[in-house]
Amino acid sequence: MQPDLSLVDPLDHHLATRVNVGDMLTRSAALFPDRVAVVDGDTEITYRELASTADRFGRALLDEGVEPGTAVALLMTNSWKMLAAYYGCARAGLVVLPLNIVLLPELLTWIVGDAEATAIVADEALRPKLEPVVAGSPAVRTVVMTSDAPEPVADRRTVSWNDILAAASDAPLEVEVPERAPVQCLYTSGTTSNPKGVLTSHVSVTIALLSNAIVTRQGWGSDAPVMLVVLPLFHVTALNTLAMPVLMMGGTVVMPSLAFDPAKVLDAVEQRSITHLMMLPMMHAACAAEQQRSARNLESVRCAIYAMAPMPEDLLNKVDTMYPNASVILGSGQTEVVPATVMQWPEHRHTAAASWGPQVPTVLTKTMDPVSGAVQGPNTTGEIVYRGPNVGLGYWNNPTANAEAFAHGWFHSGDVGHLDDESVVWFTDRTKDIIKSGGENVSSVAVEAALLSAPGVAECSVVGVPHDRWGEAVCAVVVPDGSVDPADLEDQVIAYAKTRLAGFQVPKSVQLVEELPKTATGKIQKFEVRAAARVAAESAG
Amino acid sequence: MQPDLSLVDPLDHHLATRVNVGDMLTRSAALFPDRVAVVDGDTEITYRELASTADRFGRALLDEGVEPGTAVALLMTNSWKMLAAYYGCARAGLVVLPLNIVLLPELLTWIVGDAEATAIVADEALRPKLEPVVAGSPAVRTVVMTSDAPEPVADRRTVSWNDILAAASDAPLEVEVPERAPVQCLYTSGTTSNPKGVLTSHVSVTIALLSNAIVTRQGWGSDAPVMLVVLPLFHVTALNTLAMPVLMMGGTVVMPSLAFDPAKVLDAVEQRSITHLMMLPMMHAACAAEQQRSARNLESVRCAIYAMAPMPEDLLNKVDTMYPNASVILGSGQTEVVPATVMQWPEHRHTAAASWGPQVPTVLTKTMDPVSGAVQGPNTTGEIVYRGPNVGLGYWNNPTANAEAFAHGWFHSGDVGHLDDESVVWFTDRTKDIIKSGGENVSSVAVEAALLSAPGVAECSVVGVPHDRWGEAVCAVVVPDGSVDPADLEDQVIAYAKTRLAGFQVPKSVQLVEELPKTATGKIQKFEVRAAARVAAESAG
Repeated sequence: MQPDLSLVDPLDHHLATRVNVGDMLTRSAALFPDRVAVVDGDTEITYRELASTADRFGRALLDEGVEPGTAVALLMTNSWKMLAAYYGCARAGLVVLPLNIVLLPELLTWIVGDAEATAIVADEALRPKLEPVVAGSPAVRTVVMTSDAPEPVADRRTVSWNDILAAASDAPLEVEVPERAPVQCLYTSGTTSNPKGVLTSHVSVTIALLSNAIVTRQGWGSDAPVMLVVLPLFHVTALNTLAMPVLMMGGTVVMPSLAFDPAKVLDAVEQRSITHLMMLPMMHAACAAEQQRSARNLESVRCAIYAMAPMPEDLLNKVDTMYPNASVILGSGQTEVVPATVMQWPEHRHTAAASWGPQVPTVLTKTMDPVSGAVQGPNTTGEIVYRGPNVGLGYWNNPTANAEAFAHGWFHSGDVGHLDDESVVWFTDRTKDIIKSGGENVSSVAVEAALLSAPGVAECSVVGVPHDRWGEAVCAVVVPDGSVDPADLEDQVIAYAKTRLAGFQVPKSVQLVEELPKTATGKIQKFEVRAAARVAAESAG
Repeated sequence: MQPDLSLVDPLDHHLATRVNVGDMLTRSAALFPDRVAVVDGDTEITYRELASTADRFGRALLDEGVEPGTAVALLMTNSWKMLAAYYGCARAGLVVLPLNIVLLPELLTWIVGDAEATAIVADEALRPKLEPVVAGSPAVRTVVMTSDAPEPVADRRTVSWNDILAAASDAPLEVEVPERAPVQCLYTSGTTSNPKGVLTSHVSVTIALLSNAIVTRQGWGSDAPVMLVVLPLFHVTALNTLAMPVLMMGGTVVMPSLAFDPAKVLDAVEQRSITHLMMLPMMHAACAAEQQRSARNLESVRCAIYAMAPMPEDLLNKVDTMYPNASVILGSGQTEVVPATVMQWPEHRHTAAASWGPQVPTVLTKTMDPVSGAVQGPNTTGEIVYRGPNVGLGYWNNPTANAEAFAHGWFHSGDVGHLDDESVVWFTDRTKDIIKSGGENVSSVAVEAALLSAPGVAECSVVGVPHDRWGEAVCAVVVPDGSVDPADLEDQVIAYAKTRLAGFQVPKSVQLVEELPKTATGKIQKFEVRAAARVAAESAG
């Protein structure tokens, strides 16, 4: 059965029924025009201003001749203009390409070229990185600078944010944008390979925003949430899990203007009566220390999420104490499956603190036998696989990666773990981070968890290095905390490990380093650790 | 940008990423297999049983040769099997056609024929209605009876629910179902015309379920809701707003087994610790009276919704008092826009009790000048129009109705009203229910609201009847409550109206009737009232 729409104008039907991420802001602005949508440093932007700017910006890019369906790169630090650009592109049918500003220009140029971006929006402060990227990207025809009266970038047409808005026509931004068209392309920070462009459709992001709003409803009551965003918007978590669901609900997104500073973060929590926040474990640790130095009233916080990795029990307890009214929960996800994919429920804080939590309402989560492709029952370790609307369209321009990602009708996360009897997901490791040693599979994550509490260890990453007898040998790469003489640390770490781990899990060697290579969100780049450790092991061996 | 999926099996990609309403139950069952999903009279059905039955049922219909994309009619009273049939059809790519069991067989036969249904699922108790419908529907090849060992229906293949499940193959129900394909076809009960088949897609219903879960989150906390469903599942409200969002959240749907009985309803609320319920105003009134006769503990209720029409202030107060912990709110919607479209917030209970409330997160609501098609600003009366994912695909087999419904890029509700300064929607009337009298537009709803408090009036409906001088004259059709002598009632009602209404709004005549014609959900069928009133006015004149 299909309706007979022969007398209906196709654009009319599309506009009345469509799923478009940008429309989420249009609706919020209709309901809450004078509410503050974004606090950007000292600047407060209402829903009316955010939505009307978004529409003018989208219209302006179409006026510029940017082709619908092509990518518009954003080289920006967190700001209300970055959010306005996102929603405007969404309603204009353009694909948002947020760039990771900490990448080197060479890699950024590769990404912009791979994505075939035709326009780029950038902050003046990032010009040193911007110039070589634009110069090396012949497909980029237009550069929009968020500052006024910008100098030209490379040899390309360069226009200021305010000028392009002023020049935009007043025509309503009502164009056809299929709901299965991509709205965003995020290059994965990739711990094991080069970045891949993850395309996600309007319908995926829309359903993910609704799903996230339900999942984090704990403690929302009927008041609009006030969400602190300190993670970068160029990553999927801050963009799709923190900022955008709140803007759908009529809440307020608060973005401190400077680089991460625990004192400023806690000041913002107190002054803005933050209700929700999400930080990496190391950020929570810094805030806990700051709160001990100078206590603020943090009673407004009702949901404190820690992202990406479990936290040590003592830090969990500190965070629990400093936010007396908050649920403290772990949220997990990945760029390819608009997060959160799984998220702890508040009751897991004290029963399954190291778990990832159960699936969100729109993501079916299972484990799969990596050889046979059979979906597994509970308490069986396999690759974590997902199904559901949150799963993205796939990788741009990468059929091989797509064939691996969607084998057997599920999205392959690359993570290893199991589900318990209550369908709570427990993460074990990345598939590529399993160390195969003497016929045993060693989870590097399990070894890391044990070594983190060893005296003298500040941070550590565990990898496999080639070994004649064992195939691979477990190697711990350690950042010392200075409390133990480096000359003794290797022996002490191995002795400590023997008290905590099975024999096959105990590191055969310990390498000391000053710091570990990390992504912008603080994830340790295991493939870089592994590569360096192998070089070091060979030269030592 | 589109991903290159050349190496990916299309069905694999579809299964990993699709939006399918049936998958919502699959996911709930994975999380909460042993929780009670449905309480059907004295029968408790777990999520595992509901989901596995749904899948077997969908598989069984495909095994029977029912063509994907065709309609499967349900002639059923509320039951867990009706819900299992819905989800099974959804996952099998069949279109669910729930039939209004109070319609006459002639009209049911017309609907089944119009929808070209190829199978029908029915309760034995409805056989007297079923036999003529099947006999008159040559396209129906298979009849499934929910009872065991059924006699054949008409001359068609007839099989029992249990037998068809037992015969189903064990193959997983993993078939391609486009997200824009219709999942349900509901014929509107239509107050002004014959029924039209409203087709709604998987993506619309999915987004509506998520949206409803957010809207009714008030008071949910983190516990799963326990929803009382006394409205019939063959209507959109009980199906898509009450039952299915709860089954997405791991809650429990409680359906008393018998016809509406206020004592049994309140017993169920107390015994099952109901948290959410929705009833028509007359049902709330009956329950309030029953609670006064015999008080139950109703403290578990956190959200009490009244549907379709405002309630008198004294009834609102009674409902407020009887559910001491509940938000009492009005929910509105229509079959064509998977409800709720607008819904009161708890704070409106005391500030805007007669309003419909603000839009839900996924429905943009405006008013439109019916002549120019221009979208209007606040405080201007026009036709209420909607945009958003909740808007259905359109009417089956009815291009003329579709052309009217989607004109100017908005869905036309047929309702008249305005938005106030806070975007709260205030309903005035149906477009066709405006009485044009002496050059003035009279809102029949406004007159009805005034007359409902007149002494001697139990119910009333106000329509226009032809009049030589005024074009149309306002006529009040009244059901007396017995407290006033019928001989005096017309004069008393008119005298009362003069104290409450402007002159042009005061009825010129009052007709007394024993009852008003209503739809199964209790909506007064204004077109029937109008037709009868015109006949009576002519014979009186």
